[in-house]
Amino acid sequence: MDARVEPGHGDLRLENRVPHPNDPKLRSFVEVSQNSDFPIQNLPYGVFSTPAYPALRVGVAIGDVILDLAVLENEGLIDVSPAYGVFAQGSVNAFMALGPKVWSSTRAKISELLRHDNPHLRDNKELRSRALVPMADAKLHLPIAVSGYTDFYSSREHATNVGVMFRGKDNALQPNWLYMPIGYNGRASTVVVSGTGVKRPRGQLKPPTVEVPSFAPCKRLDFELEMGVVVGQPSAMGGMLTEAQAEEMIFGFVLLNDWSARDIQQWEYVPLGPFLAKAFATSISPWVVTREALEPFRVQGPEQDPAPLAYLRQGKPNNFDLELDVALRAAGMNEPARICHTNFKYMYWSSVQQLMHHASSGCAMNVGDLLGSGTISGPEKNQRGSLLEISWNGTEPVELPGGAKRSFLEDGDSLVMRGWCQGDGYRVGFGEVEGTILPAE
Amino acid sequence: MDARVEPGHGDLRLENRVPHPNDPKLRSFVEVSQNSDFPIQNLPYGVFSTPAYPALRVGVAIGDVILDLAVLENEGLIDVSPAYGVFAQGSVNAFMALGPKVWSSTRAKISELLRHDNPHLRDNKELRSRALVPMADAKLHLPIAVSGYTDFYSSREHATNVGVMFRGKDNALQPNWLYMPIGYNGRASTVVVSGTGVKRPRGQLKPPTVEVPSFAPCKRLDFELEMGVVVGQPSAMGGMLTEAQAEEMIFGFVLLNDWSARDIQQWEYVPLGPFLAKAFATSISPWVVTREALEPFRVQGPEQDPAPLAYLRQGKPNNFDLELDVALRAAGMNEPARICHTNFKYMYWSSVQQLMHHASSGCAMNVGDLLGSGTISGPEKNQRGSLLEISWNGTEPVELPGGAKRSFLEDGDSLVMRGWCQGDGYRVGFGEVEGTILPAE
Repeated sequence: MDARVEPGHGDLRLENRVPHPNDPKLRSFVEVSQNSDFPIQNLPYGVFSTPAYPALRVGVAIGDVILDLAVLENEGLIDVSPAYGVFAQGSVNAFMALGPKVWSSTRAKISELLRHDNPHLRDNKELRSRALVPMADAKLHLPIAVSGYTDFYSSREHATNVGVMFRGKDNALQPNWLYMPIGYNGRASTVVVSGTGVKRPRGQLKPPTVEVPSFAPCKRLDFELEMGVVVGQPSAMGGMLTEAQAEEMIFGFVLLNDWSARDIQQWEYVPLGPFLAKAFATSISPWVVTREALEPFRVQGPEQDPAPLAYLRQGKPNNFDLELDVALRAAGMNEPARICHTNFKYMYWSSVQQLMHHASSGCAMNVGDLLGSGTISGPEKNQRGSLLEISWNGTEPVELPGGAKRSFLEDGDSLVMRGWCQGDGYRVGFGEVEGTILPAE
Repeated sequence: MDARVEPGHGDLRLENRVPHPNDPKLRSFVEVSQNSDFPIQNLPYGVFSTPAYPALRVGVAIGDVILDLAVLENEGLIDVSPAYGVFAQGSVNAFMALGPKVWSSTRAKISELLRHDNPHLRDNKELRSRALVPMADAKLHLPIAVSGYTDFYSSREHATNVGVMFRGKDNALQPNWLYMPIGYNGRASTVVVSGTGVKRPRGQLKPPTVEVPSFAPCKRLDFELEMGVVVGQPSAMGGMLTEAQAEEMIFGFVLLNDWSARDIQQWEYVPLGPFLAKAFATSISPWVVTREALEPFRVQGPEQDPAPLAYLRQGKPNNFDLELDVALRAAGMNEPARICHTNFKYMYWSSVQQLMHHASSGCAMNVGDLLGSGTISGPEKNQRGSLLEISWNGTEPVELPGGAKRSFLEDGDSLVMRGWCQGDGYRVGFGEVEGTILPAE
């Protein structure tokens, strides 16, 4: 077919010339194993440094290496003008602020530079040695400067499990839950990158059996498996968002572990919600997978009944078929043992609905806002996204290989979350978010 | 007395030479009326711009003028080296980051420059014309870049009033209230400076009389009279704070109006606390009054029984005798009518205790964190710091001069809060925080 003589097929012509970065047939000259989270179809953004050059800069993961975008911009191979220097920074925020058109064109350019049939970088040994950094040599940092951290509660299965445990089967879901994505403001100052140790928090504990609270190390320390939405564009104070606007503001997603001190929470949370029980640490994965890279994995979420109010209605599928895995390694175990395997697609309220709801009262959103999805549980028992649910509030401890049992986390425990979308012959993955529990003192 | 022959009286010697900036006898060559909030004993920090020079910079209020600190630093009259340029910025944060010793020495230097008997600035007409800007010519901006906004709930009278209204007299205070300063994370992105219009928020409303919520403009819009603590120093993740450390981290205080949509809050807040009901706007005064300027007005707070747990104990009085005034001007009224007059000294939990509690689970604090005290009510009926309490949940509307009645705020209403510490012949004041309600659309 001669594209030149087919008027009105501009998009098709472009596609014939330059494959879309999501094209499953794309290959890179960088070697990528089939199980890698980071094929050329992914290209997630992160922030890294190396012993040889300790300044923080923005890079993209491909296979086992990092493509240094500051080097590429410096060489004129990536152009985000009139902006300059947005990759020679300690966060992705300056790049995000440039908006979705630049996100898309930059990703297309990076994809092109990494293609197996593009000799530009492939055959320039000197440039390659500067622009491609082995991941094993790099330190990964928090990828975003977190402006605000909001945590939602949008898995029906999780909310139901918690409700059944604490209020019984008949009142499991609160009356407001089916009408809005319930959320609360979290603490942005303690969002940390994967690999950061998590010190067991202290706090006021008052089990029902005692009269007076004591201040002591948390005894019921838990994880919560979540995805985090990274907001890449601001919205105005006093405004509202359409579905399309909300979607365009989403730069990408990270894995998120919303560490929780259940006993501190239980005593403090009435009537103003969780505060210190969630404020000591929130861990995220170092790689932000772009919304664009997840497009092929978009699926319809659960049916919403009652139908959402008009301001929360969505016209397209906003869920993602994204497999999630949680593993626990107690001190002494050789490798982590899986304790949960679920999927992001089960979420009742989508990230787009969360964002529409968040802005609906006139709340301004900022570049760098992080929205936790809420604990992601599924309908099956092995799909529960917290120890609270897995051990059913401590009544059914989980047994680990080697015989150790866990109702909640113990000092020395390492918790690893992984997530990936499975394509045909490749996966678009998130790497992992890991945290090890350190003793209170 | 010859100070030189009195060993061990170094402090006294200094006092003889340079009066402390809080000395009630100090006078400035800048004219300051006796009712001014900004005598030489105050020297609060703010951020301003002028039509002639629209760049934002940091200044100090004195009488009806602003002392431009960027000019003074440029002239070498203020020296915060090795830092430089901390006043030629859009927030006080860079200055705050320099720490309490620099806060104190800078205030002493400014006081010295403004004294009636110091000819340096007084007699330099050219410099004075550049360094002293009439407040009437200036636009005042948000003084701090808000890192995080936390709102507490620390007035026993307020918590009791709310409790009696919604749960009855016998269960007015929640069981945890007397053991900790209850708080929650607020939304930092919508903290705005006095004078910013406040658009009536929309949200989900579900009065008990209907089955299904609707999305509509808030019908029960309220203010909350609070003070805000401005945190000027960071604390480490995983650490805790002593009373002395917490106190040293406090840079100063602002007036704070925690606008609240009572009907949105009522439907959304179970179980994770207030979210959108408080996220549309929080207004603060443009001037940050330093902790040091408030020292002469330090008083003992109410007795705390039960005694606080060890990590919350304080050895000195951490409350302040600070009078507070709320006035309402409905459209058509010539001037605002007072609807509340109370005092910051009634607060059960002090700002120092709030900060110690906040950090106690290992939550890192940042320069620019803003801590709302919680609504400040007093024991008397005219000391209630919200319309919810003043109108007793709408059952006793307040009557304004001219005959208008208010249970909650209406479009066009202007709400003005003022606060001041009364000294002997002078007052250390906060100016005002004003906000006018704009219609939802």
